[in-house]
Amino acid sequence: MAEPFFVVEHSALESFARQLLEGAGVAPHRAALVASNLIFGNLRGVDSHGMQLLPYYVEQLSSGLIDGAQDGAPIRESGGTLHYNAANGLGAVTSAICCDHAIRLARSHGIAFVVARDANHFGAAAYWGRRISAAGLIGFAFCNASPIVPPFQAREPRLGTNPICMSVPGPEETSWLLDMATTTVAANRIFKAYHNKQEEIPTGWAMDKEGRPTTNTNEAFHGLVMPLGGYKGTGLAVMVEILCAILGGGAMSTEVGGLRVKDRPMGVSHSFMAIDPARFAGAEEFGERMDKLTNYLHSAAPGSGYDEVLVAGEPESRFEKERRETGIPLGPGEWQRLVDWATKFKVSLPVSIRKAM
Amino acid sequence: MAEPFFVVEHSALESFARQLLEGAGVAPHRAALVASNLIFGNLRGVDSHGMQLLPYYVEQLSSGLIDGAQDGAPIRESGGTLHYNAANGLGAVTSAICCDHAIRLARSHGIAFVVARDANHFGAAAYWGRRISAAGLIGFAFCNASPIVPPFQAREPRLGTNPICMSVPGPEETSWLLDMATTTVAANRIFKAYHNKQEEIPTGWAMDKEGRPTTNTNEAFHGLVMPLGGYKGTGLAVMVEILCAILGGGAMSTEVGGLRVKDRPMGVSHSFMAIDPARFAGAEEFGERMDKLTNYLHSAAPGSGYDEVLVAGEPESRFEKERRETGIPLGPGEWQRLVDWATKFKVSLPVSIRKAM
Repeated sequence: MAEPFFVVEHSALESFARQLLEGAGVAPHRAALVASNLIFGNLRGVDSHGMQLLPYYVEQLSSGLIDGAQDGAPIRESGGTLHYNAANGLGAVTSAICCDHAIRLARSHGIAFVVARDANHFGAAAYWGRRISAAGLIGFAFCNASPIVPPFQAREPRLGTNPICMSVPGPEETSWLLDMATTTVAANRIFKAYHNKQEEIPTGWAMDKEGRPTTNTNEAFHGLVMPLGGYKGTGLAVMVEILCAILGGGAMSTEVGGLRVKDRPMGVSHSFMAIDPARFAGAEEFGERMDKLTNYLHSAAPGSGYDEVLVAGEPESRFEKERRETGIPLGPGEWQRLVDWATKFKVSLPVSIRKAM
Repeated sequence: MAEPFFVVEHSALESFARQLLEGAGVAPHRAALVASNLIFGNLRGVDSHGMQLLPYYVEQLSSGLIDGAQDGAPIRESGGTLHYNAANGLGAVTSAICCDHAIRLARSHGIAFVVARDANHFGAAAYWGRRISAAGLIGFAFCNASPIVPPFQAREPRLGTNPICMSVPGPEETSWLLDMATTTVAANRIFKAYHNKQEEIPTGWAMDKEGRPTTNTNEAFHGLVMPLGGYKGTGLAVMVEILCAILGGGAMSTEVGGLRVKDRPMGVSHSFMAIDPARFAGAEEFGERMDKLTNYLHSAAPGSGYDEVLVAGEPESRFEKERRETGIPLGPGEWQRLVDWATKFKVSLPVSIRKAM
């Protein structure tokens, strides 16, 4: 039988997250930004980038690995580009500032590229892509990450799951929004299969510790995450590493810290790009043409075993619609870690319902 | 026994390509550009984007589907962006002009984005990425393509193999250079397996005509090419479709023609991006940091069955080194199609050696 989950209404959970962050010494306006970013992940069903991150953030804030009072500062602005020193501030704080610079610069130059070095985890990349697309621009967000993925043909990790996100302007609920790790699946899907005592995982997810493809969950858990489609996933991960760490001058590859690393700050780099569709075929025409493309994709006959064809962002939008109504489920371990910090900071717990999922 | 191949020294083959294009009415400076682009593909072992394309180009030039005398013209230049009307000129002609605009604009604005609509096949994207990186900038090239790939969960094609290319400045022979289709493999690897009477292909390459994954070569040949890693490959292909056709206002999805389509021009859109690393951590530091990253990747222990870890561009560089010495192999069917056009245009054949491969 599955373990019970705790279910909390999203705005109560967001307020709880804010209070925990304030308990860790974060100013209210910064705490609100981080909390909004985390709840966005949960609302969209991306629980790996939701509240489960908060205990790590709070621990790193408490131990001084993240400087919760930092906004960082621009190193240099030049044409449509901006190089930013995040100075080890909260990832969401850096990202909000840098997205706003990207929006401002793209309005002047038609396109902008902002790179922040010495930054921290920025939650779901989609949140930042959408911050830019909400301003009427095509938004991109990239981040390098902790080295847990071997390059193609290797059996030792050198790269992160290095996400690629692109978001287009349009109605928030229906617009195309891509946010993908450059591995076949997120590492925590393998962890989940292992903890659920599922013996086999699909082909292509993982390798054993010798770098051989495996479908055995136990071998995969002690092994390595597989780059998406072999050399192509590695190529895309390196692309992100270049656009973030190499360009920005921050930590690269095995130099990067992590949520569970205690001897140094995470030190990732973020990059954000904004493109103004009004400079090409036109802003209005862009929206119409996106609808047309989506219709072409939806019109393809579904493959065997499927009822419909979905485009990027649709599964997450459906989750969001549902979870705004029914609340956000938190696993028992995740809930307990939040309860521990709440007790420590004397923050009252949000109302929750225990539910078998 | 394998069929004999014809092997031709690369500069003789390039000169032959130029003469065939001139035979089809293309001016010498434009013919030289197209020939150089095609030979680049062959030299790097990417034969799908080499001389095998030339008979299609020549046929489309002869039937008026490509306008070999067109340079196209800018529609609008604004900040770091440029929107270009390729006016159905040769793909390489459009691309060379647009890359040069991207270089010029990135030098002023730090970043530039150029989209060309109503364009034709541009050969290997890597050639264009490198044209930009040779100018000291990070170069990107994207192109939408003929609809032969179903979106994830579908069994009808709506997207092209829509390539993503990124090239970084540095020594031509060793610099990292990614050029990948957003399908698991290029469609012609499936065709090749079929023509070679190979019964099975690896998992993940293709689907049968009902959209079910298959490893049966015959089913795959009559079926569909698989997007890279399922929904992620589709997401990347749509990203490219947006950056090219949606932004540029050109043909999208099933509206796009093709090399074998005779009732309308190809009508693809290209996009090119250039980023100046000097605006961030510095141009010199960028090169040093790229070397460091490459060293990190090379230092990973090879997985079982491999001797070494290669990065994007290395396999192609090795091909190039070898083929500059030993010449370019052409399959018997490919050779015959070239001979037919040479006969028609009274162009003398280059010296070739017949060789069993």
